[in-house]
Amino acid sequence: MSELITIWTMDWVPEGPRGFVRDLRLRWACEEAGLAYCVRTVPFNERGPGHLARQPFAQVPFMDDGELELFESGACLLHLAEKSDVLMPCDAKDRADTLQWFIAALNSIEMVSVPWWFLEVTGAKDNGLTGWMESRLEHMERVLGEREWLAAGRFTVADLLMADALRVGKVRSFGDRPATESYVTRVTERPAFRKAQADQIAHFEAADAAGSQAR
Amino acid sequence: MSELITIWTMDWVPEGPRGFVRDLRLRWACEEAGLAYCVRTVPFNERGPGHLARQPFAQVPFMDDGELELFESGACLLHLAEKSDVLMPCDAKDRADTLQWFIAALNSIEMVSVPWWFLEVTGAKDNGLTGWMESRLEHMERVLGEREWLAAGRFTVADLLMADALRVGKVRSFGDRPATESYVTRVTERPAFRKAQADQIAHFEAADAAGSQAR
Repeated sequence: MSELITIWTMDWVPEGPRGFVRDLRLRWACEEAGLAYCVRTVPFNERGPGHLARQPFAQVPFMDDGELELFESGACLLHLAEKSDVLMPCDAKDRADTLQWFIAALNSIEMVSVPWWFLEVTGAKDNGLTGWMESRLEHMERVLGEREWLAAGRFTVADLLMADALRVGKVRSFGDRPATESYVTRVTERPAFRKAQADQIAHFEAADAAGSQAR
Repeated sequence: MSELITIWTMDWVPEGPRGFVRDLRLRWACEEAGLAYCVRTVPFNERGPGHLARQPFAQVPFMDDGELELFESGACLLHLAEKSDVLMPCDAKDRADTLQWFIAALNSIEMVSVPWWFLEVTGAKDNGLTGWMESRLEHMERVLGEREWLAAGRFTVADLLMADALRVGKVRSFGDRPATESYVTRVTERPAFRKAQADQIAHFEAADAAGSQAR
């Protein structure tokens, strides 16, 4: 019954995104919940019809759980969360609380922070999303100044996703936000995160060592 | 037992966003699923601590379901979807399929289309998200050329959310994408959508007539 869960990621990525590729979210969730999983790969350099059939935007991760197939790290996380109270509380109020903050990470924070980051790294002269970014992160700073965890009074899959969105280098260093910084530190000090991150970095370093990519 | 579900929206909005404010998603889901609901309002012009306590980014909608409270239209939709097979299939494979496309609407389409739209309407000289937008919409066009509904071979909450993201004026008219256009038409011709949209427009028009806003 072990290793029914397969997390698919790239066989190799450049150094920049190592430690941030989104298969990390799924590894982390499995580590938190004590779920057995294995990791398999698709080529970074060739994203053909086989890849598109599994991930229609040519991204990773995607996941197998027995006969079930899923893409989108958010969907995979919600699916995994149903397997463990550690990630998703059973109590109806705590569950609603977790769900709303989980979606907020995707659709209120990342919907601004990822495109803002994209404009920064592609060298936009005047980043037109900066004011919006500022406003969203200030709201988060207020919220995180009032509580230790986002939902249900303890760590949930909502913290996993929100901290992963907020820990991105340029986002993390955007302005002086002590409550957010302390939150990101608290969440990323969890052993499950550290193992997932170390495993992902080791995975891509092993690909360097094997020299299996034409680059 | 009727009207346990309360959808919260603004008391008034300017003409531009009418028919697009996200309470529409919740009205639409309730109409599809045959769930009784009522609509209540918070002031558009004053978004104080009471509003922030329910929606930490000062937005709408948010929702009550008996004792449960939720914000984020995506979270409210997933919560409502659990009440009806019309929105979320029971079969495990169909459910995974619906979930992945539901999250794709939020985190692969809206994460690009909403900031792209924001830069357009705020008059960015050179919209640095256009190439990314093009790529995401082309992938969607390929997918929608191969199927009538996104998941489970029939309408689900994934179509509700994806069509709502794709029907936004500037997004809908971005390039020539016949399969997407036909999909948006097909989904928005549903009686539940038309009722939800008409009800929302009537709600804001009534506020005009009542002249209850200082503007």
